[in-house]
Amino acid sequence: MKLLEERIKKDGEVLSSDVLHVDSFLNHQIDVALISELAREWYEHFKDAHVTKILTIEASGIGLACIAAQYFKVPVVYAKKSRSSSMSRDVYSTRVVSYTHGQSYEVRVSKKYISKDDKILLIDDFLAHGSALKVLINLTEMAGAKVVGAGIAIEKAYQMGGKNIRDMGYDVYSLARIKAMSTDGGVVFED
Amino acid sequence: MKLLEERIKKDGEVLSSDVLHVDSFLNHQIDVALISELAREWYEHFKDAHVTKILTIEASGIGLACIAAQYFKVPVVYAKKSRSSSMSRDVYSTRVVSYTHGQSYEVRVSKKYISKDDKILLIDDFLAHGSALKVLINLTEMAGAKVVGAGIAIEKAYQMGGKNIRDMGYDVYSLARIKAMSTDGGVVFED
Repeated sequence: MKLLEERIKKDGEVLSSDVLHVDSFLNHQIDVALISELAREWYEHFKDAHVTKILTIEASGIGLACIAAQYFKVPVVYAKKSRSSSMSRDVYSTRVVSYTHGQSYEVRVSKKYISKDDKILLIDDFLAHGSALKVLINLTEMAGAKVVGAGIAIEKAYQMGGKNIRDMGYDVYSLARIKAMSTDGGVVFED
Repeated sequence: MKLLEERIKKDGEVLSSDVLHVDSFLNHQIDVALISELAREWYEHFKDAHVTKILTIEASGIGLACIAAQYFKVPVVYAKKSRSSSMSRDVYSTRVVSYTHGQSYEVRVSKKYISKDDKILLIDDFLAHGSALKVLINLTEMAGAKVVGAGIAIEKAYQMGGKNIRDMGYDVYSLARIKAMSTDGGVVFED
């Protein structure tokens, strides 16, 4: 998606060959007009998928998910992160290791908010190794619900998360796919 | 606001005289159509305040803030929570103790995203003791910016946070103000 690629080129900060900061418009400050355009693009792609609910993970996916939900006219559920393990039988939970932060944490969603009849669209800001997205897929499938696909803003396509998840048969729709980046060369997108 | 009060009566769960769960529509699952009505109400109240930016705190304020930002046509900034202290000179930061979780954590916002010319509207889901809101006021004023007010969904008006912050001269506009609650009597709102 040209609009997002151009914004990344203009306002993204490449701190290393693997670290891209987009906190001026996506995940600290949020340009809501921009993310409404991202949401519209996801809607065009998934509008016939009979989405009943959008699932994301706190915190940076929540804004994107809420704006997207306005197009799909469905509720948002956001999975919660916790350092401690839950003993509750009322939640689906799974552990995840964050490559970014090097810590493991538990991700939970209340059993009340995903049912086996749901068709779930996953939304997140970044896809790299795919750990967050795999967690959301797991939580959805623990509930017996169907993942209809994933709408991602920025995919680091040089990492394997997106490929792995597409190979599992999921429709992952990323709006900007980074082929490579460097502090001197900037960001190069896939065609 | 009748719509929100009725929704709290219908779907809120009073777990004790001080614990109200609204995670079926506000802060785990989000009814985006509902929060759009809340946002419209904040807009009607603050539309002449020349808001330049909305500031909230992760995670549960983000959805509300993004939907509200569509009315005000301004960006959202969300303050981030961290257990560790930041040594960065690029952020405004302050420590806060959570009454809910009994832990202290640091809240930060990048200096890049609040400037002295900003007129900041604060948005959050709950106001009780007022610690989160006071943090957002502090961060705004560290930047030399002006707090034009706070839009709150649910205020526990029997606690002192709202009174204290209004006494400091801030315009706190809460859409549902709880006078008392109990597991048998449910929720009683202020007139």
